Amino acid sequence: MANQLSHLDQIFAALADPTRRAIVMRLCAGEASVGELADPFDMALPSFMKHIHVLETSGLVLSEKSGRVRTCRLSPDALLRAEDWFQQQRAIWEARLDRFEAYVMKLKQERAAAERPSKKTEKKTDKKTDKTTKRKGS
Amino acid sequence: MANQLSHLDQIFAALADPTRRAIVMRLCAGEASVGELADPFDMALPSFMKHIHVLETSGLVLSEKSGRVRTCRLSPDALLRAEDWFQQQRAIWEARLDRFEAYVMKLKQERAAAERPSKKTEKKTDKKTDKTTKRKGS
Repeated sequence: MANQLSHLDQIFAALADPTRRAIVMRLCAGEASVGELADPFDMALPSFMKHIHVLETSGLVLSEKSGRVRTCRLSPDALLRAEDWFQQQRAIWEARLDRFEAYVMKLKQERAAAERPSKKTEKKTDKKTDKTTKRKGS
Repeated sequence: MANQLSHLDQIFAALADPTRRAIVMRLCAGEASVGELADPFDMALPSFMKHIHVLETSGLVLSEKSGRVRTCRLSPDALLRAEDWFQQQRAIWEARLDRFEAYVMKLKQERAAAERPSKKTEKKTDKKTDKTTKRKGS
């Protein structure tokens, strides 16, 4: 559990940077070399490699070196784990809204019932009158 | 666009901490005072207030003071915005998987076709023979 919490810490911290989110977005479309990933950014390679390292530590990205080329690919498990967290919160939130809606409906029904007390009283009185006028044994 | 990026930076940075995620989770179930929120944590109030401040800056939490009590509630828009980001990435990822699946299917069909060249040739020959044996005007 502690590990899962710490993993979510790392995933969210990794995604709290526009360069790293752009890298994840690019890798969703397919694997790419570090050179290809760095190309759109006006950034020195050592700085860019720090971003790759943060993404690797968080488990969002995996990389492999072949000769002089390091190729990166997405590890969707980490992305799905973070998305799951949001879905869990939304489920709690929506359950609360449902309870609130049910509460409002109950209040409305109670108010509607309270608005016509005289009619009910009249009906009850009528019933009693009917009973007393009924003959026994009929 | 720059503001949206910066907003996502703040949302993800706010969620990169287990105490802040626990506060968000608690507020999903309904509003609460700072005292109620701080209760489960073994933390000095000034340190806890820093977490509340980070959550407020990110737009995830709204708070209001009435007398001596500050009440916090969730602002679900920020939570939904972050969830949207994950859904967008998943859509790109799944579209890629669909393309990959289509590519594999195409390869399989091509391989299956290549494995029976003789039968096709035979069939073609048969058809040609049929055509030539058909009488015109029949």
